[in-house]
Amino acid sequence: MADAKDHVRVAPLGGSGEIGKNLYVIEHDDKIVLIDCGVTFPNADQLGVDIVLPDFSYLEERQDDVLGVILTHGHEDHIGALPYLLKAIGQVPIYGARFTIGLVRSKLDEHKLARDAEFHEVGPDKPARIGPFEAEFVPLTHSIPDCLAVALHTPAGTVVHTGDFKFDHQPVAGPPADIPGLGRLGDRGVLLLLADSTNSERGGSIRPERTVGEEMRRVFATAPGRVIVTTFSSHIHRVQGVLDAAYEDARSVALLGRSLNRNAGIAIDLGYLTSHDGVLVKKPRDLERLRPDEQVIVCTGSQGEAMAALSRAARGEHPQIQIEAGDTVVFSCRTVPGNEIAVNDTINRLITAGARVMTEESDPDIHVSGHGSAADLLLMLQLIRPKFFAPIHGEPRHQKAHADLAMSVGITPEQIAIMANGDLLEAGSESFGIVDRVASGITYVDRMGGGDVAEELLRDRKHLAEDGVVMIVATIDGSDGAVIGDVDIVARALAADDELIEEVAVDVDNALQDAAGSRPDIAALQHKIHDVAAALIQKRSGQRPMVIPLVVDV
Amino acid sequence: MADAKDHVRVAPLGGSGEIGKNLYVIEHDDKIVLIDCGVTFPNADQLGVDIVLPDFSYLEERQDDVLGVILTHGHEDHIGALPYLLKAIGQVPIYGARFTIGLVRSKLDEHKLARDAEFHEVGPDKPARIGPFEAEFVPLTHSIPDCLAVALHTPAGTVVHTGDFKFDHQPVAGPPADIPGLGRLGDRGVLLLLADSTNSERGGSIRPERTVGEEMRRVFATAPGRVIVTTFSSHIHRVQGVLDAAYEDARSVALLGRSLNRNAGIAIDLGYLTSHDGVLVKKPRDLERLRPDEQVIVCTGSQGEAMAALSRAARGEHPQIQIEAGDTVVFSCRTVPGNEIAVNDTINRLITAGARVMTEESDPDIHVSGHGSAADLLLMLQLIRPKFFAPIHGEPRHQKAHADLAMSVGITPEQIAIMANGDLLEAGSESFGIVDRVASGITYVDRMGGGDVAEELLRDRKHLAEDGVVMIVATIDGSDGAVIGDVDIVARALAADDELIEEVAVDVDNALQDAAGSRPDIAALQHKIHDVAAALIQKRSGQRPMVIPLVVDV
Repeated sequence: MADAKDHVRVAPLGGSGEIGKNLYVIEHDDKIVLIDCGVTFPNADQLGVDIVLPDFSYLEERQDDVLGVILTHGHEDHIGALPYLLKAIGQVPIYGARFTIGLVRSKLDEHKLARDAEFHEVGPDKPARIGPFEAEFVPLTHSIPDCLAVALHTPAGTVVHTGDFKFDHQPVAGPPADIPGLGRLGDRGVLLLLADSTNSERGGSIRPERTVGEEMRRVFATAPGRVIVTTFSSHIHRVQGVLDAAYEDARSVALLGRSLNRNAGIAIDLGYLTSHDGVLVKKPRDLERLRPDEQVIVCTGSQGEAMAALSRAARGEHPQIQIEAGDTVVFSCRTVPGNEIAVNDTINRLITAGARVMTEESDPDIHVSGHGSAADLLLMLQLIRPKFFAPIHGEPRHQKAHADLAMSVGITPEQIAIMANGDLLEAGSESFGIVDRVASGITYVDRMGGGDVAEELLRDRKHLAEDGVVMIVATIDGSDGAVIGDVDIVARALAADDELIEEVAVDVDNALQDAAGSRPDIAALQHKIHDVAAALIQKRSGQRPMVIPLVVDV
Repeated sequence: MADAKDHVRVAPLGGSGEIGKNLYVIEHDDKIVLIDCGVTFPNADQLGVDIVLPDFSYLEERQDDVLGVILTHGHEDHIGALPYLLKAIGQVPIYGARFTIGLVRSKLDEHKLARDAEFHEVGPDKPARIGPFEAEFVPLTHSIPDCLAVALHTPAGTVVHTGDFKFDHQPVAGPPADIPGLGRLGDRGVLLLLADSTNSERGGSIRPERTVGEEMRRVFATAPGRVIVTTFSSHIHRVQGVLDAAYEDARSVALLGRSLNRNAGIAIDLGYLTSHDGVLVKKPRDLERLRPDEQVIVCTGSQGEAMAALSRAARGEHPQIQIEAGDTVVFSCRTVPGNEIAVNDTINRLITAGARVMTEESDPDIHVSGHGSAADLLLMLQLIRPKFFAPIHGEPRHQKAHADLAMSVGITPEQIAIMANGDLLEAGSESFGIVDRVASGITYVDRMGGGDVAEELLRDRKHLAEDGVVMIVATIDGSDGAVIGDVDIVARALAADDELIEEVAVDVDNALQDAAGSRPDIAALQHKIHDVAAALIQKRSGQRPMVIPLVVDV
């Protein structure tokens, strides 16, 4: 291994080979800075799991070397795991832009971690020194205010991490991306670029966010009645677009949904969301005195989440909103993969209730992505002109497409590394490549914050879910193994008639009778019961339930 | 109720308000003809379910009145439930086109029902008389050979059921849609039109199938190595397009996957699929002697199905195909909603293995839908000019959009009925509207053909999957309720440490001690154990597992 001062090392603990739970370890001279600390949401196979975290064990080992966490922006896949990290490795300084810190403070507060947290507000004019790292920040545009690219200057060279970005030259609010600033970084020389790959498969560039506001105005002007807009709850610029369009069309706006109100509240307090006098009402009830065509509701539920405001309204179960003929419902969002069925179900219910529904499919102008496509990614590469490049924030297909884009502008395959989570990439004057693996993986957090969920538990859940469970209880005499009374069988989630259950009981009883006569070996008997019952049930019904035998000796 | 001879009644037992499990009951003068009898596939919530059938109970009651089943075409959502129907109501005559009968014969054979089945081959020149119904057939185009629209002439009027269709004026094989024939039906007067709504939300018309063949030729000509094409296994015209393109590019083709080989075999036997000499090889192994750029594999797995050929190859688990750099994999299909995650996973694995992957997203020319969009649906309405119209074969959103199209060509809202499954629609000279409900619903069939799965079972499975199960066994003295030995607790799929389990045991033991002293009421004790344990587990861990108490008295 070369001298630790000659190179920088980067290990993704999340966010490489996937979109979600971003967590990048940047090491120099045995000191660590983390970039982002996010969660991801479980897929349908991860039964009963609420959120998915990166595995922190590598950081637990290196606890004393972790000097801080830099947050590029406030999305859940970049900040959501921070409370769990702080619980795992103790408090570390947190660096982020003003709005990001606002969101994080509220999040840590919920976990009772805010009081002891050490926040450092950073920005384009507020660099930070963190051990051997000089952190410089460049404003970029995305789908939440205050997004930053991070340039970490070290004696071995500079690492630039883009965070999530697109180049929106006419942002709804806040500064545009600092393109000359990125160019200056490139002029000074960048050792390694880590860049967002989400939309690398899409050609061209992404329309400006303000075009959505313009479309919103057209929708409001032509909608015959109330308009209900659903979007991501942290999309403050989208909410701003709705407020502006509502003002022009003389409509009032109510916000519905806990996360939406929390995020909008923080944005208003910090000056990131501005409302014309009287446009924003306090409660949905305040809209009731108005005509339908004077009303706008912005609400959660864009992904068909069962308990969100729009989903409940679509099912006719919301105490404050009833969907009516004349309503226009605008899905100002994309459907995150995996949510298609739930979103479609909500749309069908809304249409059945009489609403007109607009989606990105029926009206492409009603949403734009926050992630740059080919033109944006090429511009970033041309500005930074890195010595080495690692496409991040993407599945393998996105990383590959991003690598192809890089090669199209002269970066060679030898200068590119496609990392998976846990890969340890080294970049220095003399070296470039994946040199090792660090501990990485997935930590499941159960509903109600009930703690970690192990892989084994998930396997059990899947087994139970698909094949059910059969509990078999036999009571025997502890001295000679004679069976006392009946074998009790309880089956759940199994397609079994009484006849099959009775057959199992008889077979188990026979097996126990065969074994009787000597001092019983409980473990062996339970094993026997399991095998006899499992074989019979599979033979008779084709099912393979979880069989739990219990022998009680008295 | 009017005289049963004055009207026709239609009840969808499946296929209205959904895409899937099509089954239409057409009644006149108390006699019934069925149109189609399909299955649908379970969604992620329907744990451990293999296929979903319509509820047949209405037909079981009316068993003697059912004169026959007409099949519009051979897709699973139109023929898949036929074996189960015949098991439920006994054999009834089956009417269908030649290729459809070929597929159905093979399917009934698997269920050992083919020998006693009564098949009637029908077609444009082969009408059928079925009781009071004169059935006439019009060829249409779709994504499987031999699709028919059905005109059922009755003394009360004619009902036209389109089956699935688009207007492809230049079909790859077989006749184009008989447009003049549809016009003649309209001239003679149609009482009620039931028409496919799948693509009613899409504007314009659908490109001809042969354009996919042309694109396939371009792909083959430019692909540097082997090409692997995955598509729906019944899409014979797509396979024909691949065979033709392979011939032109001097490539040989192997078919991989059980359903694909079965369907292609039937198509070749019946003359619906033709292969130039030597293009189609018998086994994938036969390709090994060729250069990669002389090879094409057509395989199953277009929906990311875990056990299909392409999915196994992507995971590196297929005995015959290893994905290699230079391979081009073409997804010549759409992703059926709900399969997005699985398909995406397959694509990522293919790309990681070095393949280039083409999908409808990256290359829209590589697939066309089999269902007509707005222009096709309007043409059908203009040709048939029905007195009454019911949009079918669609979710509520598709039915609504289809109704809107009908209104745009002069059909009034009073002439349109949007049916849900179970609605009984009456159409006659004096009447039109939904007059009643019939029994309808869902029947789940478990894996291994193990029989029906009840709703309760699915609820149990979901409960087990999300919260796990705790079995609590206590042994007591049958005379006085004194607890004998320890309380046994077995937990599965529950996030619980030993401490919590021990606490539950203590609490249960205490509760039983409290109740001891008299002759025990086993049911009451079990109830007590359940409540004590459930409350403690929820309080300590936030989880709500299924708690199964069992009190054994000795």
